[in-house]
Amino acid sequence: MTDYPGFNFEVLAVDAGSRARLGRLQTPHGSLLTPAFIFCATKGAIKAAGPHDLKAANADIILGNTYHLMIQPGAERIERLGGLHAFTGWDGPMLTDSGGFQIFSLGQGTDADEIKGSRHEKRTPLLTKLSEEGATFRSPRDGAYHTLTPESSIQIQRQLGADMVVVLDECTPFNVDRDYTARSLEMTHRWADRSLAAFDRLHDGKQALYGVVQGGIYEDLRREGAEFLNSRPFFGHAVGGCLGAHKDQMYDIVDYATRPLAPAKPKPIHLLGIGGINDIWEGVALGIDTFDCVTPTRIARHGWALARTADNHRHNLRNARFAEDSDPLDPECGCPACSGFTRAYVHHLLKAGEIFGIQLLTMHNMAFMTRLMATIRSALLADRFDDAKKVWFA
Amino acid sequence: MTDYPGFNFEVLAVDAGSRARLGRLQTPHGSLLTPAFIFCATKGAIKAAGPHDLKAANADIILGNTYHLMIQPGAERIERLGGLHAFTGWDGPMLTDSGGFQIFSLGQGTDADEIKGSRHEKRTPLLTKLSEEGATFRSPRDGAYHTLTPESSIQIQRQLGADMVVVLDECTPFNVDRDYTARSLEMTHRWADRSLAAFDRLHDGKQALYGVVQGGIYEDLRREGAEFLNSRPFFGHAVGGCLGAHKDQMYDIVDYATRPLAPAKPKPIHLLGIGGINDIWEGVALGIDTFDCVTPTRIARHGWALARTADNHRHNLRNARFAEDSDPLDPECGCPACSGFTRAYVHHLLKAGEIFGIQLLTMHNMAFMTRLMATIRSALLADRFDDAKKVWFA
Repeated sequence: MTDYPGFNFEVLAVDAGSRARLGRLQTPHGSLLTPAFIFCATKGAIKAAGPHDLKAANADIILGNTYHLMIQPGAERIERLGGLHAFTGWDGPMLTDSGGFQIFSLGQGTDADEIKGSRHEKRTPLLTKLSEEGATFRSPRDGAYHTLTPESSIQIQRQLGADMVVVLDECTPFNVDRDYTARSLEMTHRWADRSLAAFDRLHDGKQALYGVVQGGIYEDLRREGAEFLNSRPFFGHAVGGCLGAHKDQMYDIVDYATRPLAPAKPKPIHLLGIGGINDIWEGVALGIDTFDCVTPTRIARHGWALARTADNHRHNLRNARFAEDSDPLDPECGCPACSGFTRAYVHHLLKAGEIFGIQLLTMHNMAFMTRLMATIRSALLADRFDDAKKVWFA
Repeated sequence: MTDYPGFNFEVLAVDAGSRARLGRLQTPHGSLLTPAFIFCATKGAIKAAGPHDLKAANADIILGNTYHLMIQPGAERIERLGGLHAFTGWDGPMLTDSGGFQIFSLGQGTDADEIKGSRHEKRTPLLTKLSEEGATFRSPRDGAYHTLTPESSIQIQRQLGADMVVVLDECTPFNVDRDYTARSLEMTHRWADRSLAAFDRLHDGKQALYGVVQGGIYEDLRREGAEFLNSRPFFGHAVGGCLGAHKDQMYDIVDYATRPLAPAKPKPIHLLGIGGINDIWEGVALGIDTFDCVTPTRIARHGWALARTADNHRHNLRNARFAEDSDPLDPECGCPACSGFTRAYVHHLLKAGEIFGIQLLTMHNMAFMTRLMATIRSALLADRFDDAKKVWFA
């Protein structure tokens, strides 16, 4: 029977009007309060920020992507170099995903998110063969074929050595029918059991395994997926796969997936790859404990600063109206970027093509996300979640 | 009579076997010990590093380039935003150059150093007209014509507000003859007097003016240039212009220029745009107090780490031999990059195109330069300059 000696999750407070909850997640690399945002160190580094910057932004936890790291520099190499914590210099909690999402969603040489949303451009897919055994794909790096199986994904994640690891699942795209999704869900469950067995074989007591609720856009399949997870000894649960075509449908699907997740002892629930500002407020209300998303750091590289009071929660610092604006990026923020530099300076750096502008925006956007999560946690502690949401969007 | 109330330069120790000297340079934004290296924040930022990183690397002083800043974002704008210190967040000593070097050396849209060395590719020059009045050039940003005169360069540098500012001079290229150089030197001296007059008119007691020794590759003209400076109330002296075709000639020319610089009270001597490792040891021995050069931060962006023990003082971290090397970039260094990360990690980041790899190399290369300068200063204090040089190159 799988156990997780260095891990614990406890719920400290529950919202009266929703499934939102304040929790504490304990890992061998430290504890964090939830709801929390997980920053994406896709290839083993936050783009334009290091561990020091993460700490300055009050970040608690990061993730590495198994797909990217297995291709470059390779899991064996990272293991020989002491694992992902030692390799990256991040000594706090860390999660890796299974690698499945990228294989099922990426086209050769591009970075898309077809599964999550509505992009349907034709591309040569990475995936070349899908069978009961696993998923074969062709590396865009060198053209080599790799097969990811439930067992090899666990093995690779063992080599990477993150605290939390995730089972391999089939991520069904948006446009498949119910029958395909139902058959896929059954295979995903067989894969989950193979993952649990592999995890037990390799387990050294330093990692915790998350199962994933699949089931596409179908309420009954999502319930089936959640009930399957309830019956298995995962440390945590994640919601993955197709979340519909628009935001309202996404919240419905997250609701279908999380509502039946009711293990005897509460388990942390992670929403894979989602982390828009609205999504976080909605997801927390549906019981989500952790989120991850590349958006805060990705939009920084395109010149955007997150701000509560801005349109769509973001300012484009390349806009000429900031050329002589001596306010900080976000007057509500006290991060190192906001306390030392003006919008005018960041505007200049972006126009001049200076890397330091991206560093400042990355720092601020990370601090913005951790401040949002702290706001939500404080509200849950004070039993004021709904009020806090109104204040946030006021 | 020009005076410099917030400034002072004193020589604390002199080497017995050369003109090397340990000094203290006091500015309104703090003091520094010399010999010192000035890091290039060309457009108002060190590429891939901020003030926090400069401090972590023990950097004392930075420079901004008048040419780049007058074109983007403009000196008036920087003045309205509180000057270059407030704009960039760097609160330590700062120097700006006159803008002349770029106008005389850059081609349209490129970044060359023809004057310093032997590059002779044909390019459309920035300079469109040179007269007694000043130098007219066409901005590569928007095609607009600008005329830089001794007076406007001082005016712009007043608006930028650095501690130390430099007179406009004609930078003669490598391939001009003695007659041209002699006539140019005379104009440069008339420009120097116009600069002093303009400086006096605009002086607020917060800046100090440097004159520049010109005279090309000709010993007598360099002596004439230095003697001219001795007769004028500059706070400091700089060596600029053509320094020959190869290193040995450069050291001869620096010798010609610095040997006659013998004011009654010692003045700091800056070597404009030069800062190779060998150049620094040689330059210090010839009496140079400060150096600036883009090389340490530029080569970082191309994957190079400075190291005393490496060939040519640098490692190419993209080289496959570092793929599993768990040493720090430079085992002799204790900078944040070297104390937290391995060569293998930096190698991976470079191969993966991660900005953070450039940040780590920039941090290390800055720390390497400040450590070199501290080594030299310690040796001068202990009267062991020659021994220290032998140890360094052992």
